[in-house]
Amino acid sequence: MAFRTDLAREALNHSKNLRNTAGIRQTQRTIDGFTVDCVEVLSREAAEELGKPCGAYCTMTLAPLTRRESEAFPHAVEVLSGLLTELLPNMDDDASVLVIGLGNRAITPDAVGPLCIEHILATRHLRSALPEQFGSWRAVSAAAVGVLGQTGVEAAEFTRGLCDTVKPCAVIVVDALAAGSLPHLARTIQVTDAGIVPGSGVENARQAFNREAFGVPVIAVGLPTVVDGASLLWHAKQQGAVCPELEELSGPVFVTPREIDQQVHDAAKVIGYAINRALQPHLSIGDLDLLLS
Amino acid sequence: MAFRTDLAREALNHSKNLRNTAGIRQTQRTIDGFTVDCVEVLSREAAEELGKPCGAYCTMTLAPLTRRESEAFPHAVEVLSGLLTELLPNMDDDASVLVIGLGNRAITPDAVGPLCIEHILATRHLRSALPEQFGSWRAVSAAAVGVLGQTGVEAAEFTRGLCDTVKPCAVIVVDALAAGSLPHLARTIQVTDAGIVPGSGVENARQAFNREAFGVPVIAVGLPTVVDGASLLWHAKQQGAVCPELEELSGPVFVTPREIDQQVHDAAKVIGYAINRALQPHLSIGDLDLLLS
Amino acid sequence: MAFRTDLAREALNHSKNLRNTAGIRQTQRTIDGFTVDCVEVLSREAAEELGKPCGAYCTMTLAPLTRRESEAFPHAVEVLSGLLTELLPNMDDDASVLVIGLGNRAITPDAVGPLCIEHILATRHLRSALPEQFGSWRAVSAAAVGVLGQTGVEAAEFTRGLCDTVKPCAVIVVDALAAGSLPHLARTIQVTDAGIVPGSGVENARQAFNREAFGVPVIAVGLPTVVDGASLLWHAKQQGAVCPELEELSGPVFVTPREIDQQVHDAAKVIGYAINRALQPHLSIGDLDLLLS
Amino acid sequence: MAFRTDLAREALNHSKNLRNTAGIRQTQRTIDGFTVDCVEVLSREAAEELGKPCGAYCTMTLAPLTRRESEAFPHAVEVLSGLLTELLPNMDDDASVLVIGLGNRAITPDAVGPLCIEHILATRHLRSALPEQFGSWRAVSAAAVGVLGQTGVEAAEFTRGLCDTVKPCAVIVVDALAAGSLPHLARTIQVTDAGIVPGSGVENARQAFNREAFGVPVIAVGLPTVVDGASLLWHAKQQGAVCPELEELSGPVFVTPREIDQQVHDAAKVIGYAINRALQPHLSIGDLDLLLS
Repeated sequence: MAFRTDLAREALNHSKNLRNTAGIRQTQRTIDGFTVDCVEVLSREAAEELGKPCGAYCTMTLAPLTRRESEAFPHAVEVLSGLLTELLPNMDDDASVLVIGLGNRAITPDAVGPLCIEHILATRHLRSALPEQFGSWRAVSAAAVGVLGQTGVEAAEFTRGLCDTVKPCAVIVVDALAAGSLPHLARTIQVTDAGIVPGSGVENARQAFNREAFGVPVIAVGLPTVVDGASLLWHAKQQGAVCPELEELSGPVFVTPREIDQQVHDAAKVIGYAINRALQPHLSIGDLDLLLS
Repeated sequence: MAFRTDLAREALNHSKNLRNTAGIRQTQRTIDGFTVDCVEVLSREAAEELGKPCGAYCTMTLAPLTRRESEAFPHAVEVLSGLLTELLPNMDDDASVLVIGLGNRAITPDAVGPLCIEHILATRHLRSALPEQFGSWRAVSAAAVGVLGQTGVEAAEFTRGLCDTVKPCAVIVVDALAAGSLPHLARTIQVTDAGIVPGSGVENARQAFNREAFGVPVIAVGLPTVVDGASLLWHAKQQGAVCPELEELSGPVFVTPREIDQQVHDAAKVIGYAINRALQPHLSIGDLDLLLS
Repeated sequence: MAFRTDLAREALNHSKNLRNTAGIRQTQRTIDGFTVDCVEVLSREAAEELGKPCGAYCTMTLAPLTRRESEAFPHAVEVLSGLLTELLPNMDDDASVLVIGLGNRAITPDAVGPLCIEHILATRHLRSALPEQFGSWRAVSAAAVGVLGQTGVEAAEFTRGLCDTVKPCAVIVVDALAAGSLPHLARTIQVTDAGIVPGSGVENARQAFNREAFGVPVIAVGLPTVVDGASLLWHAKQQGAVCPELEELSGPVFVTPREIDQQVHDAAKVIGYAINRALQPHLSIGDLDLLLS
Repeated sequence: MAFRTDLAREALNHSKNLRNTAGIRQTQRTIDGFTVDCVEVLSREAAEELGKPCGAYCTMTLAPLTRRESEAFPHAVEVLSGLLTELLPNMDDDASVLVIGLGNRAITPDAVGPLCIEHILATRHLRSALPEQFGSWRAVSAAAVGVLGQTGVEAAEFTRGLCDTVKPCAVIVVDALAAGSLPHLARTIQVTDAGIVPGSGVENARQAFNREAFGVPVIAVGLPTVVDGASLLWHAKQQGAVCPELEELSGPVFVTPREIDQQVHDAAKVIGYAINRALQPHLSIGDLDLLLS
């Protein structure tokens, strides 16, 4: 039985006797009241030991948003937009970007991807139809690609078909994640240039979303919304305890916060607006409010 | 720090050294594949020790429904309808019943009450407007009364105002409950003639719904949808363990199953149909499908 | 066959040969880009001829909002808030107000009342629980009271029970209206101190909401969202035309705009915020955003 | 100014002096209480005169469903399933089918496509992953492909990408239609093997969905949910009338029935189940209930 998490920061915290410490760099900063932790996995050995592919993983806490502080939304958007800009490749003005929302809209803890797509400003068609007005805007396509059980098509196959059509220079993929412990649930957002394996945190791994799959850089944005019973149990066992209540659970159990509806909607909007601000820096949050309503 | 649960059955299981065992009677039966556990709290001493008022508490597991067995829905409706019929008072043909849904529709784990009301067949107005057709039907009123933070009015005050208007002979109240451990979450329904204190399981106790409050019998139907961090911690501590991850949680944390959307909708429909069948035994499930669509 | 409308302004426009012109006063102004038409029905004779009870009926167009103009939302809120303030009675600081949303949330053209209630800041419980912080705030209660077919209780009975509990000095009631022609649909809001007869525009008249019913002033806010086939036919017949297509409709047909989802959500938010601003003038729109999220 | 309709039956009824009557065949039958009208457009001349491409157009009324008759749902499913089976090509057991839902889920009159997809049983992944259990089932893929304004990608481009991936032998496409008059709104379903030009009825024509576009037969299933102001006006003008109220409408106005929420959900379920029954005739409606819940 293992401790499982999609968050590099948690994985690192739980790897107490890491040998390849040289292959990992960790930093922390605070921007506009939001704490940002970055873990860089630099060597193949460190990647194997940590169980996370090479790349940069930045985690921002959403505490000011959770506390409903004044101006928390625009600040959260700017911080996340900055992290995305750092991880996105340098792109020509003509380069287009494809934004993909993963997950099942009907299961709230899994809905952050599809909900986020509703806040993405799609511009690819405007740019070609009205070049005088929109010629200087980044060409953006966006789609929620559904889940295998509902479509019969792997999300990665679906996305590959879209890539053939829109030929993006980068893919941004938004998904729900599994955390290894309760305190992170719905309170942090992880951004990484290492891509993502959808469903890996809930023992339902699907085809990977990464540079190998699509031939272009893939930036993954994730909100942890579930933790499984095995991870809860792991914490207790670390202390030498026996938790009969958790052991008796037949099959995997995943829990999610009680306030998940509000939290997922809030985070989906922050992520969507941050993606727009990173891709169309000439548009303010107020502009986006008008364009997306 | 205490173990908390709204389920009498769980409270009893966790009270290992109960002194007033004579004041408690426990039975178990299986009906159509559904296990039904009943706990009767018979004496005031037992009630105090258990922390539950006197009355009968019946818990039915929803296992066949969770497993999507064929005919699970109609069987679940019939079993629950039977439990309701046992607990409802004997009523004249002219006696009316008021069904109240408690909770916040916007928070899925709290939405079972309002969702259930959508499946209740309200007949009070038909009975008076078309006595020839509906004169033999039970007069039923139904309302989702909202939560204090959204209305400014206690749910019990709201209900008292309705009782003054419709003068029911019994009130049936549907609400979400807090369980003390994960395995019961969204997998059982508790029915009791002891009423309910809404929010008591989530440390937000409101005015009670019971015979004292409204002057008529109150039957409470509840679906456990959350368990708090303190209860998870209690389980580990019983074993002498320390769970730093849970201890570090500032403020109460409540978790709910990942599949809560489907589970709450399923249970709300079972409860709604069971109430209809208990109050209008001349209507089949097929009749209700047509009348409620 | 008659032309039917809940809008006093439309009723007046279609009453070409009005005899009691002295009993009616009509004014028009433009505030922040929003046109406001007011019709005052001053005499009983004029009321009978017009088919509208005595009182002031102010209609504001939503054109800047429909065109998604910058700042249209805050301006619309301020204009409507001003109209409400004009029609509300003078109230002591201690006087409380009850806001009622009428209609069926499951039918989009009928959902403006319930949706609006989600934007109302309920404060009655705060004022009594935390007098030091909230003692100077207006005590506000709010409820969506459902429809007779779903509750078995007349909305007016329901509201009377609430009035007994909260003892308001004024009732504000929000409902969908029927217009007599297409151009007004979802593009205007009518505010009146004459109350409302819910459902009268869709041939399903219920008990009235007015001063006689509750003993206090009743301000009705309405959004026209449907027009019936008979009214469409009336327009054609006025021209001497025969419209076989409309005549062949068996039973009443009501049409609504294609974009009704967005329009009803937008209007519900404008109305909700305007009511808050009229009742709590010390709170800005930004304050309300934080308090209601 | 022209009369516009996506329904071949309406187009034919309004073409009074058709010259190419030989190129058109019309039949009517009643199955299980549902009236089915078929129009076959057989010659290129007839197609041009009628404004509809060559093919068979079958329209079934939903009257028994609208009247909530007992067994109306299963009967509607069987009738529509039969029409689909007539129009689908003969297919090998190994041939796969792609089902596409067109339209905008956030606009109720446009949501029938995306809602229908929620009722489609996707089996392509099961067939390859579990050939022993599902090897004899038809391989079905399903997707709601969004609208250009939200994705930046034409629905037809999106679908072409999917066709490259799943290589279907037929495409079934579900969309909302524009009717030319009120009585047909949401009360009929049209099935055709002539494909569809999405948005053509609301003056927003997109790339066609037909055999030319995808290289395989395309069956289109449509529910008329809107009628435009110009068509309403056309009816009146035919009678020599002037309708100033309709003429004053700036820009196109589309109306939809007041009960559109229920009607669209009902029709989406009928269409979804009928497609499943046509593609997987070995599964009963009860089987589908269990598999899709």
